Amino acid sequence: MPISDKIKSALDRGSWIRKMFEEGGRLKAKLGAENVYDFSLGNPYGEPPQEFLSELKRVVNDQTPGMHRYMANAGFVETRETIAGVLAEDSGMDFKWDNITMCCGAGGGLNVVLKTILDPGDEVIVLTPFFVEYRSYIDNHGGICREVSTNEKFEIDPEAIGHAINSKTRAVIINSPNNPTGVIYSSGSLEGLDRLLKKKGEELGIVVYVISDEPYKKLAYDGIEPPNIFKLIDNSIVVTSHSKDLSIPGERIGYIAISPKAADTGDLIDGITFSNRTLGFVNAPALMQRVVAKLQRVCVDVNDYQEKRDLFYESLTEMGYQIIKPQGAFYLFPKSPIEDDVAFVKKAQNKNILIVPGSGFGTPGYFRITYCVEKRLIEDSLKGFEELALECGLKSK
Amino acid sequence: MPISDKIKSALDRGSWIRKMFEEGGRLKAKLGAENVYDFSLGNPYGEPPQEFLSELKRVVNDQTPGMHRYMANAGFVETRETIAGVLAEDSGMDFKWDNITMCCGAGGGLNVVLKTILDPGDEVIVLTPFFVEYRSYIDNHGGICREVSTNEKFEIDPEAIGHAINSKTRAVIINSPNNPTGVIYSSGSLEGLDRLLKKKGEELGIVVYVISDEPYKKLAYDGIEPPNIFKLIDNSIVVTSHSKDLSIPGERIGYIAISPKAADTGDLIDGITFSNRTLGFVNAPALMQRVVAKLQRVCVDVNDYQEKRDLFYESLTEMGYQIIKPQGAFYLFPKSPIEDDVAFVKKAQNKNILIVPGSGFGTPGYFRITYCVEKRLIEDSLKGFEELALECGLKSK
Repeated sequence: MPISDKIKSALDRGSWIRKMFEEGGRLKAKLGAENVYDFSLGNPYGEPPQEFLSELKRVVNDQTPGMHRYMANAGFVETRETIAGVLAEDSGMDFKWDNITMCCGAGGGLNVVLKTILDPGDEVIVLTPFFVEYRSYIDNHGGICREVSTNEKFEIDPEAIGHAINSKTRAVIINSPNNPTGVIYSSGSLEGLDRLLKKKGEELGIVVYVISDEPYKKLAYDGIEPPNIFKLIDNSIVVTSHSKDLSIPGERIGYIAISPKAADTGDLIDGITFSNRTLGFVNAPALMQRVVAKLQRVCVDVNDYQEKRDLFYESLTEMGYQIIKPQGAFYLFPKSPIEDDVAFVKKAQNKNILIVPGSGFGTPGYFRITYCVEKRLIEDSLKGFEELALECGLKSK
Repeated sequence: MPISDKIKSALDRGSWIRKMFEEGGRLKAKLGAENVYDFSLGNPYGEPPQEFLSELKRVVNDQTPGMHRYMANAGFVETRETIAGVLAEDSGMDFKWDNITMCCGAGGGLNVVLKTILDPGDEVIVLTPFFVEYRSYIDNHGGICREVSTNEKFEIDPEAIGHAINSKTRAVIINSPNNPTGVIYSSGSLEGLDRLLKKKGEELGIVVYVISDEPYKKLAYDGIEPPNIFKLIDNSIVVTSHSKDLSIPGERIGYIAISPKAADTGDLIDGITFSNRTLGFVNAPALMQRVVAKLQRVCVDVNDYQEKRDLFYESLTEMGYQIIKPQGAFYLFPKSPIEDDVAFVKKAQNKNILIVPGSGFGTPGYFRITYCVEKRLIEDSLKGFEELALECGLKSK
């Protein structure tokens, strides 16, 4: 009773990703870290780019007074102006500094946006497979999480979304490049989504926002450029962070950007400022706000991730695993060779391979591999994956 | 409708402190910042101590890899061990690293704790006058905020608290040194509170935690040392930040410490870790976790604040204002010379003095002055306060 029934039951259910992370800790303690193939957590192994480290030093050595104080809850105006300028350049749209709210990572930003738009019982659509924390984020603010399947290529299925929309629907959360599939939604899909939401919105007299969670935006391969959401969807709110593109997930720095074309931008901005304050974030960490301002065009080495994707994708495909080739992010989402994905994940554990079952993303029958790890770890794990393929009858000896 | 009804109505009510802050912005733009006496916001004017700046540089120049990555959600073990060691030394109690969760400032920490213990409809007692954001924090997690008056000296009134406790009560939030009164609760009061909560807890078969919000703990004057809450109250959870003692409120770094004597510490620790993650904080900013570890005994110049308290307290008292002399923090909470505190605050605005009405802290008939400002600002404002005293009949010409 001292902790709430709600939290108690959430703890009992647990998070698959965290369970794997903990199992990893136990295995590493037993076998030595170098002998455990931990592909469970999206925690980039690499260091931030040199530009980040230089800018961090410059900011720390800058003696301008007042830089660690409270600023406006939405963040330093200079940083917000810089980001608005970059978004204006990329979209050709009229972004102003007050369209931008600096936030504590995308997780923080999503909570702030959801608190702003949700009354108890309101619904938010998520597209399976999806980052399961969305379920908690929606529930935090009294919302109901409606899971809608993507198609067989993990692309947006507008028809399925259409069936799920009703007068209580407030938003659709999308995530592209996607965790866990690595899919980048096409311009055509996004245009289709925009048309659908406008049509349904008019029919039902509601506004349905698209909340686009974009921390992997810069991690795209083969020269693909993820479509600019602002150009394709009017009622769009982008939530992003520099956790992945600058390899600084521990620093909790990101931003919320409201499309200049979104309905009720004024109320949204005020509401987001209020929610950011009262959820206890107050403001994004001051020092990092200053550091990231000038790093909007900087990114970790994408080729390094692309090489790892290629190595993993080609090796596993050759072994008989069925995988939609990821176009971005740093995840693979292969079909489980046996129907029961949780059983497969347990088999993999016996080979000291840590992966997460698709059930943990609302899509049983698959598993997720994270490849933001050292190359050696991927290479050394292949023997185990090969054995698993054989054991599960993917190919003959 | 695009933003939630709940947020819309909260925005319409507004926050007094923020209203004053905005009014300040308007006045400063019109008259020049040096001509506005802004005592509205608890945003320390001073720079962080030299030890902070040196440690920040040292940490930034440290080339140890992995320092910007995700760590365990509750924070770096090294930092938590250091803080546990300091708390153990101060309390003589058995604090371990896992009693400590690093958090994004006290505002973040309070939300995390409240989410962990509250089911919808559960009640939390706050003691008026109080930092009004508590009301939002409690409401965020479905809780009901029960306001209980302190006595005429703004000290804890156990009898009044006793009347407010029922089977739905989960916690009492206390804040000492107090915002807005500057009062430090005595050992006797805290012991009384502990006895009361144990007695009521037994009667009703519940556990009532004391959540002690302590960002001003090190800002105590006249040699007073605020009582150690862990020694006096068994079911205690301390939430604190370095915003005020290191003058770094923009950096959002603090910690939650669970008493080793608290009921169900294991569940509390797990629940707090879960809530910290799912509310989107994920972890406290990595860099600042490392910086504050070695600064647990460091504090800004308390004498500077004490001198300002003396100047303000003595000057206003001489003018006829009635004030309980603050023992800590950087606020004064005088009785409004006229019954209507909001009317008084508007009168003060006409003298370019920005203060916050007691109504904004659940206690009409008073007003709050923040004195974490330059000395010159206090000196120059005294003429205006004198005029107000005369106009309101506090003293004859």
